[in-house]
Amino acid sequence: MFYRVLFLFLLMVQIVSISPNALGDEGMYPMSELEKLDLQKAGLEMDSALIYNPDGLSLVDGICKIGGCTGSFVSDQGLMLTNHHCAFRAIRDASTPTHDFLSEGFTAGTREQEAPAVGYTVRITDSYRDVSADVLSVVNDDMDPDKRTKAIEKKMKQLSLAEEEAHPGKRAEVSEMFLGKTYVLFLYTYLKDVRLVYSPPLAIGNFGGEEDNWMWPRHSGDFSFMRAYVGPDGQPADYSQDNIPYQPKVVLEVGSEGVSEGDFVFIFGYPGTTYRHRSAAFLGFLSELYMPTVVDWYGWQIQNLESSAQGDRQRQLALAARVKGLQNTYKNYRGKLQGIDRLDLLSNRRQEEKELQIFIDADPARKKNYGQVLTRLDEYYQARAETAAYDLWLRYMLRSSETMSAALTVWENAIEKDKSEADREWAYMERNLDQTINSLVIKSDTYDPVADTLIMGELMRRAGNISQAKELNALKDMTGADGAEKAQKYLEKSFRKSSLMDSETLLEAMSKSTEELEQMRDPFLRLVSELYPPYLEMREENKRRKGELDQLQAALQEIKREFQGTDFVPDANGTLRYTHGRVEGYSPKDAVQLMPLTTLEGILEKDTGHKPFNVPPRFRELVNSKDFGTFLSPELGGVPVNMLYSTDTTGGNSGSPVLNARGQIVGLNFDRAWEATINDFAWNHSYSRSIGVDIRYVLWVTWKFGGAQWLLEEMKVDFE
Amino acid sequence: MFYRVLFLFLLMVQIVSISPNALGDEGMYPMSELEKLDLQKAGLEMDSALIYNPDGLSLVDGICKIGGCTGSFVSDQGLMLTNHHCAFRAIRDASTPTHDFLSEGFTAGTREQEAPAVGYTVRITDSYRDVSADVLSVVNDDMDPDKRTKAIEKKMKQLSLAEEEAHPGKRAEVSEMFLGKTYVLFLYTYLKDVRLVYSPPLAIGNFGGEEDNWMWPRHSGDFSFMRAYVGPDGQPADYSQDNIPYQPKVVLEVGSEGVSEGDFVFIFGYPGTTYRHRSAAFLGFLSELYMPTVVDWYGWQIQNLESSAQGDRQRQLALAARVKGLQNTYKNYRGKLQGIDRLDLLSNRRQEEKELQIFIDADPARKKNYGQVLTRLDEYYQARAETAAYDLWLRYMLRSSETMSAALTVWENAIEKDKSEADREWAYMERNLDQTINSLVIKSDTYDPVADTLIMGELMRRAGNISQAKELNALKDMTGADGAEKAQKYLEKSFRKSSLMDSETLLEAMSKSTEELEQMRDPFLRLVSELYPPYLEMREENKRRKGELDQLQAALQEIKREFQGTDFVPDANGTLRYTHGRVEGYSPKDAVQLMPLTTLEGILEKDTGHKPFNVPPRFRELVNSKDFGTFLSPELGGVPVNMLYSTDTTGGNSGSPVLNARGQIVGLNFDRAWEATINDFAWNHSYSRSIGVDIRYVLWVTWKFGGAQWLLEEMKVDFE
Repeated sequence: MFYRVLFLFLLMVQIVSISPNALGDEGMYPMSELEKLDLQKAGLEMDSALIYNPDGLSLVDGICKIGGCTGSFVSDQGLMLTNHHCAFRAIRDASTPTHDFLSEGFTAGTREQEAPAVGYTVRITDSYRDVSADVLSVVNDDMDPDKRTKAIEKKMKQLSLAEEEAHPGKRAEVSEMFLGKTYVLFLYTYLKDVRLVYSPPLAIGNFGGEEDNWMWPRHSGDFSFMRAYVGPDGQPADYSQDNIPYQPKVVLEVGSEGVSEGDFVFIFGYPGTTYRHRSAAFLGFLSELYMPTVVDWYGWQIQNLESSAQGDRQRQLALAARVKGLQNTYKNYRGKLQGIDRLDLLSNRRQEEKELQIFIDADPARKKNYGQVLTRLDEYYQARAETAAYDLWLRYMLRSSETMSAALTVWENAIEKDKSEADREWAYMERNLDQTINSLVIKSDTYDPVADTLIMGELMRRAGNISQAKELNALKDMTGADGAEKAQKYLEKSFRKSSLMDSETLLEAMSKSTEELEQMRDPFLRLVSELYPPYLEMREENKRRKGELDQLQAALQEIKREFQGTDFVPDANGTLRYTHGRVEGYSPKDAVQLMPLTTLEGILEKDTGHKPFNVPPRFRELVNSKDFGTFLSPELGGVPVNMLYSTDTTGGNSGSPVLNARGQIVGLNFDRAWEATINDFAWNHSYSRSIGVDIRYVLWVTWKFGGAQWLLEEMKVDFE
Repeated sequence: MFYRVLFLFLLMVQIVSISPNALGDEGMYPMSELEKLDLQKAGLEMDSALIYNPDGLSLVDGICKIGGCTGSFVSDQGLMLTNHHCAFRAIRDASTPTHDFLSEGFTAGTREQEAPAVGYTVRITDSYRDVSADVLSVVNDDMDPDKRTKAIEKKMKQLSLAEEEAHPGKRAEVSEMFLGKTYVLFLYTYLKDVRLVYSPPLAIGNFGGEEDNWMWPRHSGDFSFMRAYVGPDGQPADYSQDNIPYQPKVVLEVGSEGVSEGDFVFIFGYPGTTYRHRSAAFLGFLSELYMPTVVDWYGWQIQNLESSAQGDRQRQLALAARVKGLQNTYKNYRGKLQGIDRLDLLSNRRQEEKELQIFIDADPARKKNYGQVLTRLDEYYQARAETAAYDLWLRYMLRSSETMSAALTVWENAIEKDKSEADREWAYMERNLDQTINSLVIKSDTYDPVADTLIMGELMRRAGNISQAKELNALKDMTGADGAEKAQKYLEKSFRKSSLMDSETLLEAMSKSTEELEQMRDPFLRLVSELYPPYLEMREENKRRKGELDQLQAALQEIKREFQGTDFVPDANGTLRYTHGRVEGYSPKDAVQLMPLTTLEGILEKDTGHKPFNVPPRFRELVNSKDFGTFLSPELGGVPVNMLYSTDTTGGNSGSPVLNARGQIVGLNFDRAWEATINDFAWNHSYSRSIGVDIRYVLWVTWKFGGAQWLLEEMKVDFE
């Protein structure tokens, strides 16, 4: 959570250059850029208008967003295919004291047995239009950076609200495409009744677990089927037994014959954030300070949360999603740091900027307009570096424990709710409050005071090493010589006294004013109220900084474009993007060649009988019985399990359908290879590979292991 | 050392079958079998008589044995090429207080600067002949197993002694080829003046160290040049400044253009011991009891010796070779255990034997002769298993510490020297005594009482868990409740009192009788004298067992041959063998393909600047300067470093030249890939791969890094 907030100001939207030697596989193209590409030449065997058409229906309309992931509609009855890890929470929540569906897998034998995926929404893009002129009408060149940022933020919210008034029941959002320059208003439909249909057991859906995460060769059955429902009137509705399956405008065809090495594939999805062509100063800040700090803190949490729950299955389950999230970022950042180091990204970027500076200085006009850009970016990140330890610590203090995170939401809500809708922080706008409350409830469901005591205790201890943290009134007692002891006592007493993580108390608190909250005399609310003023100060300072950074980045982008004479595609920002590539392996090191398709045989090879390499015995029997239907690949001599391809993806592309040259689903994207964790900073044909589940494995597991052949029939797949 | 002794009775000589589906690459062929093979069809591009000719000179005559390794003559001035790890001790011994040649590398700028390799001998095979009839004339079918074993042993010694009398200055040895059936008398010349010529630094010669050992991809420059000298009369002589370079009968040509993927290669060498087609009972004993015990004990020693020497460079150096030897076996056994498990070798062998038993039982004559063979083999290994923990412990007690090992040699020598030559144990025969004394001196040179105290203390502690060991008089006091304390005091006192590891005392002791030794009142000699009777009892029991096992194994071999209808090649037994294959990679697991040649680029990839991945800075500069002469492979785009090929090798093949289809040296064999540690039990074309240094790397390093271009000239290699 903290992550998203920090990067909202730090790294919101950036640019990517199409370097001259790219093989046409780099680039997460916004839909508006597709017309500039020769997709047929790249390998597409259908009309581009059939995959994307702003004036009519196309493949894109079969894609949706499920939670933070991408999904695709695979039947006219609202059946959706996405990743197992995207459905993880729904599977856990559907579990009962007698059935652990994560372990057993989940199969709904009938529509009625489909389990509500509480808190899940499905977002469908209805339309979008450019609103750059509108947004930029509220700023001028002489404005202070902080005023500029705030004016733009407010205008974006106002435009969204106006659009939503014009389209009742829809949601509107303005996304910044080119930083400080291009803004697009998206209109979305949100479906609120989402249900779980089929999920394999975790031992299949997450085979290899953390050990294999970010790794190739891979053998994970990372898929689940869900279904979207609407009210009897066809409109979005909350869960109800009377609801009916949603009928998507477009259904994607399943290409059950799969792919071979060398085949063209493409992906639609919602990639999160990339930072290509940022300054060397930014890269230095990130790789030398920011990411190592995150790796250190996440690593500490993983180790201590896990060992605190050892032997306690109940707590392990409750902590599973939290630890999984920490591990994912932890391993990803380690991969990135290694990649930055291995590719000498920082010194290469510095060298590029030296050359850019020479280019700038060579012309008096350029020198006047851009001469100071790089220097000022350096200064900017130097200033960020000076307060980074404190900034991070303060955010962790308020966000790393669920207790403090809930207290912060309650307290901030009390402050924000007196403001007008457009002036509020994003999470507390009327239109977003349901979602905010929903995540509060989820937090209280898996609340773990042991874990939170550990985390807060450690952060209090760490405050002793950070001068600005030591000076905070709220922690004064806890950072002296006997601080650790005092902190421990304080936490024990606080957890005994607090009733904040009781979900009813929590919901009530969301309607209270700050005065009423003070009267609750809850120790964590009090701690938050004391930390809130310094937090607010930091947030405002960061908004001011973002205004400054935006202008510097926009200037850097302009002059780089002039220097390189190339065109740019906007960096990923969570909006719908297209990328293509080929099914192909790569060489991670001297004399090692990785092939692009794994097989069932590889699962048996890895299977040790112990987590995370423990397929159910029945699975092994099914493999040995060799009843593979039409899903056997004669070339490979087995059923393909996972696939590797040279598309340009990043976090947020999870669940994206991998489509063949004829637009059929041949896989589900779920990860990248270790060397490709660096994708966020640099894409390279020699090692940037994405990983997907082969559709043949999805279908074989659903049919043979899940016994849910009616789903294959619903998708019109021949399997025998 | 212990290893060799144990296996002498346990596993001495076995058989290997050529399975019907073998690709012709399996088989460590004795020279006498070569005429049965179609080498031209396999890929050889020269007359077989040019590589082996019992009646004249051939390539084989350019091969020699250096210590436990294989070497090849590469100039008419006695220049030899072997592995760096084979020359390791010589390089260490040549080092001075101011020059650590292991770290620096060693280059003799002139003949005079060549350093004596003390204790090294070069063995050249002069001739051999079958002596089976002679040997077997001393036994009959009614003899007791132990008498049979002893009679054969004695006859083999007598034949050797007679042959040596007939050829003064030569050495003769009888080797058992087919177990209990075929015996061959080899006549050897031993050269005693061996000198070190050129060795790269350890950072090149053992790049990757233990981490990369048994692994592919590999980047080790595991080669050294040595030179053999003879007296001015051309006869073998001890080191002297007056000696002259030995002129080999045949010089091998260096094939500096190297190999490509798919090329035919062959190897001559002295593979140690293989155990293919042994019984399931043997495999079970080995994999479930014997090897796990060795792995456990070696692992303990490695960990404790290393941590006891931490921060003490002097002791680390002294322990280096010892720890290296332990690690090599440790990792090899772990690979073997994994392979036996992965390939289900044990249950497959059991299944084969079930079928064999059915075949035997189906015919009354077969049933009468062979019906009990498998059952008796089972019983044999059950009996072995019962005493294995004690047997191993007793051997470790006498062999794992250098102190006890020296004391044992001294004590046993006193007993054996009163016997006639042919009745003596091998090490104490007049003809072998020099070598025995030599290894005693080497032991005393690197003597480490701290390490030995640790090892003996732990073994005394372990005796407490072994009932037969607990009962030994010598240890009675040390295995009770306060045993550990008593053992510690006993050891401290003993090490203070003992003068045994002083090399002069040691040499003197070798001429003493047991009575005189007793008068020395050395605590370790006393301990050995107390442990010697039970040791002798075990040794005699093992000889009796070998006699029994020999007959069972011979019977098993006969009936298997009948059952399978195939021919057998004798198992490796340290005598000269031929094997061929191709330069080719393999797939160790699903979706991973390993290529057969690594390059200099891969060294830079692995180089971290820290051991064991730390090439000297000058090396990195040389690579970057791209001055590769004729050694660059245009296909690979770099200089090849190591190569992988599908020959059939095992321990003892170290240093063997890898020869191309025209008989030129294209590499030096030094290791096997991880999956091929199982070679000793089963060879398979899909994973059995050997690893060599590419000759182009040998030549490039010698020329560019070593600056010893005169060696390339001496070998008549074009390099610019």
